[in-house]
Amino acid sequence: MTIHKGIRTGGRSARVQQSIHEAVKLLLESHDRADVTVPMVAQQAGVTPSTIYRRWGDLATLLADVALERFEPDDKLPDTGSFPGDLMAYAEQYLDEMSSSLGRSMLRDVAASDDSQCAGRCADIITTRLTILTDRAQARGEDYPPPDQVVDRVFAPMVYRIIFSKTAPDVDYVRQLVDQCLSEKSA
Amino acid sequence: MTIHKGIRTGGRSARVQQSIHEAVKLLLESHDRADVTVPMVAQQAGVTPSTIYRRWGDLATLLADVALERFEPDDKLPDTGSFPGDLMAYAEQYLDEMSSSLGRSMLRDVAASDDSQCAGRCADIITTRLTILTDRAQARGEDYPPPDQVVDRVFAPMVYRIIFSKTAPDVDYVRQLVDQCLSEKSA
Repeated sequence: MTIHKGIRTGGRSARVQQSIHEAVKLLLESHDRADVTVPMVAQQAGVTPSTIYRRWGDLATLLADVALERFEPDDKLPDTGSFPGDLMAYAEQYLDEMSSSLGRSMLRDVAASDDSQCAGRCADIITTRLTILTDRAQARGEDYPPPDQVVDRVFAPMVYRIIFSKTAPDVDYVRQLVDQCLSEKSA
Repeated sequence: MTIHKGIRTGGRSARVQQSIHEAVKLLLESHDRADVTVPMVAQQAGVTPSTIYRRWGDLATLLADVALERFEPDDKLPDTGSFPGDLMAYAEQYLDEMSSSLGRSMLRDVAASDDSQCAGRCADIITTRLTILTDRAQARGEDYPPPDQVVDRVFAPMVYRIIFSKTAPDVDYVRQLVDQCLSEKSA
């Protein structure tokens, strides 16, 4: 079962999805995530467990879907007047969001879900935002590295360290990644 | 509950751990991982569920522990006679292992586990192997980049794309990462 935005359209289907998402958020406020089960979510949302299995396939994918919704781009990317400033601001904002316990849960839930659409949405959040920044740079007549290179040089190391390091990356480390990435922008 | 190698020593404790690991492997051969539960593992291993909860905390951490064991360094790193050759060989071997369904499951299980020791072990697998390669380079009198830089430039982008991309990274992409990393080794 895959997650895609298409399932969000439509009246009844959208309302059912909404109530299931709300049920998950409510349960996560009062329970450890390891204790939440599909039948609990179903009961809270007033649907049958099979409705949830049919739509999401498993609990990990449902948790990832709910988590991702909180991190969809909201277009609040500060415009600092230059691409280096914009990229640094976004990278710091991303570090801040993703090294929070909510952000780490989101990354964990998405990584845990055996659903490539779902993982893809997580990566899309970054590339969508980077495209906003490179569009701005182009409009200003600035040089800028390709978004894919920024992902490899800045965001991949950040995400890797958030998920796998014993200690979370800090702002200095992220600034260094951004500086190195920008110094090779002609590559 | 944290995973650490210390729990592997000792007679009875080691035997119990071994039988629980074997039970997990056996169950995963015949069941979807989403269907495996702690009580099932306990029954298969002939222990009580509380033994498992006490030692691993939750199922995700147990699955991650079992998965990690399969990827512990086995010192079979090919010696190609030069650091660039050794690094390329290891990077290709890592891509091969981790983009397999077993490797992806391992990365997912480790990422899903709320246990920093466990995630740290996954990162340690890479740095341990890189240290073997840089030790060899040093013995040969070669220049080489610091292992941390190789992690950021080569392994973090690879892992990020294996977990989050809709399409898995290929060998050409990994070669490009290694070439770029080596071209900056004086940094």
